[in-house]
Amino acid sequence: MSRFWSPFVKDLVPYVPGEQPKLSKLVKLNTNENPYGPSPRAIAAMQEEVGDDLRLYPDPNGERLKQAVADYYGVQPNQVFVGNGSDEVLAHAFHGLFQHGRPLLFPDVTYSFYPVYCGLYGIAYETIALDEQFRIDVADYARPNGGIIFPNPNAPTGCLLPLDAIERLLQVNCDSVVLVDEAYVDFGGQSAIALIDRYPNLLVTQTLSKSRSLAGLRVGLAVGHPELIEALERIKNSFNSYPLDRIAIAGAAAAFEDRAYFEQTCQQVIASREQVVAAMKALGFEVLPSAANFIFARHPRHDAGGLAAGLREQGVIVRHFRQPRIEQFLRITIGTPEQNQALLAALGGLCQPA
Amino acid sequence: MSRFWSPFVKDLVPYVPGEQPKLSKLVKLNTNENPYGPSPRAIAAMQEEVGDDLRLYPDPNGERLKQAVADYYGVQPNQVFVGNGSDEVLAHAFHGLFQHGRPLLFPDVTYSFYPVYCGLYGIAYETIALDEQFRIDVADYARPNGGIIFPNPNAPTGCLLPLDAIERLLQVNCDSVVLVDEAYVDFGGQSAIALIDRYPNLLVTQTLSKSRSLAGLRVGLAVGHPELIEALERIKNSFNSYPLDRIAIAGAAAAFEDRAYFEQTCQQVIASREQVVAAMKALGFEVLPSAANFIFARHPRHDAGGLAAGLREQGVIVRHFRQPRIEQFLRITIGTPEQNQALLAALGGLCQPA
Repeated sequence: MSRFWSPFVKDLVPYVPGEQPKLSKLVKLNTNENPYGPSPRAIAAMQEEVGDDLRLYPDPNGERLKQAVADYYGVQPNQVFVGNGSDEVLAHAFHGLFQHGRPLLFPDVTYSFYPVYCGLYGIAYETIALDEQFRIDVADYARPNGGIIFPNPNAPTGCLLPLDAIERLLQVNCDSVVLVDEAYVDFGGQSAIALIDRYPNLLVTQTLSKSRSLAGLRVGLAVGHPELIEALERIKNSFNSYPLDRIAIAGAAAAFEDRAYFEQTCQQVIASREQVVAAMKALGFEVLPSAANFIFARHPRHDAGGLAAGLREQGVIVRHFRQPRIEQFLRITIGTPEQNQALLAALGGLCQPA
Repeated sequence: MSRFWSPFVKDLVPYVPGEQPKLSKLVKLNTNENPYGPSPRAIAAMQEEVGDDLRLYPDPNGERLKQAVADYYGVQPNQVFVGNGSDEVLAHAFHGLFQHGRPLLFPDVTYSFYPVYCGLYGIAYETIALDEQFRIDVADYARPNGGIIFPNPNAPTGCLLPLDAIERLLQVNCDSVVLVDEAYVDFGGQSAIALIDRYPNLLVTQTLSKSRSLAGLRVGLAVGHPELIEALERIKNSFNSYPLDRIAIAGAAAAFEDRAYFEQTCQQVIASREQVVAAMKALGFEVLPSAANFIFARHPRHDAGGLAAGLREQGVIVRHFRQPRIEQFLRITIGTPEQNQALLAALGGLCQPA
């Protein structure tokens, strides 16, 4: 380390994103991107923004996008926050809503960025173990806390917590913010945005990187009570006045406006997922029930690290987390039918009966 | 405030950016945008990125852009950090390099985001008065500090600190980071990047929003010793793995590669500035010497607030800061020759001799 660093910097343990390989021939099933491209309307809207007006600052409030999100969910624009990817939105939420001197609660197996944010902002946390089937039991969260966060469906498990369970949690946890991180909700879940008018401590985040096929554009959002949104706006306006560029605002708004394309591509991913799940079960895999655009699976007779390496040799990249409880699992993104076939063919070769 | 906010949020005093009017007919000289559009090569590079590959995450390290900046300045890519506008880069620098329990030093008249970052990260600061001609005297900074930051040329004054003065400051201030914020340096200054190999505590930030005509794209950068860059990378990787989208990385890299267009448009802005300065002096204005793409001027007989309102009535927007010492100044961006004529004609009407 350097003596010029702020002292906390030396203890930071940064998040490690999935590999972004430079080779385009790989079957890339490691970072949960959508196999289908963005909405043609989003593409057209972005093309229109690429021109001389890029010399001008964007709207610092991204109002066009907030309105599109508000229209989609039937809420008001002052219940919507937008940012440079849901990771930035989550960072502002940790900073602005979770510093209360009591521990933040999240599952032991979950999005590995959460403890990183805690390190960045000095937030104490406690992890709550998922049950034996890797499910969240909301009863386990009935304890003093400075906030609660979990993805729904959870990552990297893909398991969904039903909306009535989230509501039970909100009923007994009124004194701190409950953040439901819905990065994958469009592939089989119901959004908790339906509950925000009744629970002023509920914040829901979403991303355009998965179901809206815009990982390369970096747009995320939060929906909740205007007072929670105001905290995020205060942080944002003390950090970076213009987090979203002109192209991102236009493309993201158009993606929300193109409901038909969105629904069609989500349905295709869901149908492919069910086919992949069935085929992997036939190969002997245990597959957790997934409501996401990925599956989380282990094989009783084949080591996950060995399978990941074997797949890699055949040009298929999946994600393997060397962490307690899940080290024998692979997280596999649902790809195009052709990609899924390549995956299944490779797995078929690797999982021959002994 | 809300009981759900982290306690510090209620005391945040966010930065207030210049107005981004929705009306396109206005002569917009209030936020220091470039009157000329981005490089045609940058436009072409961005157009190429708008397509199905936006479904994929960008390179989290923006290596293509780091290489372009490194090539331009003759440094190594590990001496370059890139981010979502220089405001984000500055935020990370405040967070990662200025928290040392001693006050950060910056001028009393300067970029008004600096105290906002201090509020966000709990950093104590002391302001150092500019001299009577609104210049920085580096001798005033020889005092205990946890860091020093100033724009060069300074904002909103436009006054340039010569490189030898910056070096004198670095020679006597070896124990904390000196951050030179070069948002406007390409319009008449010499970059302190020339000094980074000799001063491991020197960090230089720049933006693509001004001289490279890409305010709407949100790209900024920092150049310095690899250890300073590592602090920024650690913060960035604990905050948002992918701060720059695919289109921004491509467009910004191409803008750095197109040296000829950049030099030509900078020269046009500089030539226009000298014409505007001469014309305003002829109208009786006192104009501070500017090395930026804006001028800072006051009239001995006309109130600045009144002039700003009068200009606005004629469709010309400039920036007026209601702050001590500078409340009688207007900050006026250099526009196209036509915009500058509109400005001067309106000022001519407002500044008739009594």
